[in-house]
Amino acid sequence: MKKRAKSNESSLIRRIEQIAWRPTAVLPVSLGDDAAIWRPRTGYEAILSCDWFLEGTHFLATRHPAESVGWKCLARAISDVAAMGGVPRCFLLSLALPSTRTGAWLRGFLDGLAKASHALKCPIAGGDTTRRQEILINITVVGQCRRGSAVLRSGARPGDAIFVTGRLGEAEYGLQLLRSGKKKLSFRDRRLRKHLYPRPRLAIGGALAQNRLATAMMDLSDGLSSDLARLCAASGVGARIWAQQLPTVRMAEGHQKSFDAAELALHGGDDYELLFTVAKSNLARIPKSIGNLALTQIGVIAAQKKVLLVNGNKAVVELRNLGWDPFRS
Amino acid sequence: MKKRAKSNESSLIRRIEQIAWRPTAVLPVSLGDDAAIWRPRTGYEAILSCDWFLEGTHFLATRHPAESVGWKCLARAISDVAAMGGVPRCFLLSLALPSTRTGAWLRGFLDGLAKASHALKCPIAGGDTTRRQEILINITVVGQCRRGSAVLRSGARPGDAIFVTGRLGEAEYGLQLLRSGKKKLSFRDRRLRKHLYPRPRLAIGGALAQNRLATAMMDLSDGLSSDLARLCAASGVGARIWAQQLPTVRMAEGHQKSFDAAELALHGGDDYELLFTVAKSNLARIPKSIGNLALTQIGVIAAQKKVLLVNGNKAVVELRNLGWDPFRS
Repeated sequence: MKKRAKSNESSLIRRIEQIAWRPTAVLPVSLGDDAAIWRPRTGYEAILSCDWFLEGTHFLATRHPAESVGWKCLARAISDVAAMGGVPRCFLLSLALPSTRTGAWLRGFLDGLAKASHALKCPIAGGDTTRRQEILINITVVGQCRRGSAVLRSGARPGDAIFVTGRLGEAEYGLQLLRSGKKKLSFRDRRLRKHLYPRPRLAIGGALAQNRLATAMMDLSDGLSSDLARLCAASGVGARIWAQQLPTVRMAEGHQKSFDAAELALHGGDDYELLFTVAKSNLARIPKSIGNLALTQIGVIAAQKKVLLVNGNKAVVELRNLGWDPFRS
Repeated sequence: MKKRAKSNESSLIRRIEQIAWRPTAVLPVSLGDDAAIWRPRTGYEAILSCDWFLEGTHFLATRHPAESVGWKCLARAISDVAAMGGVPRCFLLSLALPSTRTGAWLRGFLDGLAKASHALKCPIAGGDTTRRQEILINITVVGQCRRGSAVLRSGARPGDAIFVTGRLGEAEYGLQLLRSGKKKLSFRDRRLRKHLYPRPRLAIGGALAQNRLATAMMDLSDGLSSDLARLCAASGVGARIWAQQLPTVRMAEGHQKSFDAAELALHGGDDYELLFTVAKSNLARIPKSIGNLALTQIGVIAAQKKVLLVNGNKAVVELRNLGWDPFRS
């Protein structure tokens, strides 16, 4: 991150510097130079990922608390490292701000970012700041994994079991509750937690990679119907999903009329759960849960290159890709 | 870079994939996964830098050729690696585009980006794409250097000689010619080359670092007056600059009335030349030029924490920081 002397930008960078501890064994150079230096461990390779998080497209500055924006921009970028089975090591923050957002909003944003940085053990290494009419965020995460151990999307084979972590559709349910706005929800409402403060599944992703249990893996960012189609395309296979096995949102009685839990689970985005496949021979080694996090088999990989949904009455339909794609009009 | 199946975004990513060769020894995983994998060499450490390049702020889509935008966004990010004395190894492209720019503009942009990627030996490793009303670009560059060999801004000591590469103010001169627009300039005009197609000084930066000749180094992105103030602040020193020694723009007779070469050299941004300091004991080891690129001593580091300009008539004035700062109003 470039340091600007005697200017507002310099004070902005000093505030960003304070958000996180900096382990000097891994990040030996201070934030104020042309670039950051990162020391990878011998025998490991780097996982690199960057993610847009843009006002209007990915969040609403008027609806989402600044703390959530700070937490979520880093958590979702780290989710890509979890999806490879790696460990996050540092991140770069590119931040563009209007002058109206350098007060309370920036404080809240940096507070949320600091919490994510500490909780996910991922210190800031550098970045770039500029002024802009809208809030623009781009996060680059650097992770590491043992050489050759990263789990890709392309390794699924016919007969492999398809698993997901946690419950699907919870983030979309929270978003819809927030949007419906019948009565003002507290941002501390448990049902909003996954939409506002998602947790990348680092422990389970790492365990699956280290024990070579997953043949393919990715994170669920745009919804199961979209993301499973991508995993299948990368692996050159298809899938059969069992509708009745989907771990859906638990909702109150009254809500079951207004919200379709199955639709939320199939097409809701932003859950940042892991989708992974396991060879039959390893099926017995996958536990029902790790800590509080359920691991649920939701179907099997098939040779036929279609994604099919098997309903309770045994009807089989092709699963339409209804998740999020910014370029689909 | 995440691959999206059966969509416009997927086809966009396929087009981005084609811009560069991908050396699989360094980048073993294809572009379509959650993240990229990069293999650093043993005994080396990673240099990480990211840079905004935004429509309206950093370029004008209506005035700058798309090829230049593609070249320059990567070249200026790589300049930060040159300024540490490193070698670029790969980059991540975060691109947000309006649908009106996915035709001719995108072709030109990717063409310029591909040329820079090849010329500067820096293949694409991944990134993120989304739709947006304006063109937003963020480039993350990953470089490498021998462990502990990076040249920082903080190493300048009183008595060190201050050097710059090339001529200063050339990019600003080109920008002003483009803006004045009296007669339409060809984008091939030699005087526009540094503004449109800057070349990061990788060879000289690397040579200075490997031979441990530079005590401090940075690239000149915002203008000498701004950037030298930063180097001095990081090193806790001041400087005396000799106005008559500044390597200024060579301009035609008629232009010497309209343009002030000294002002361009002191405050003009976007040159991406290197600013570095050399201990007296190593002064004899610095050549006058390397290839066609001049190395010019422009002053000395002083203990007093001020940046002073020594004019021809021996008058000494404090050099005001008039370079570019996005947060200065």
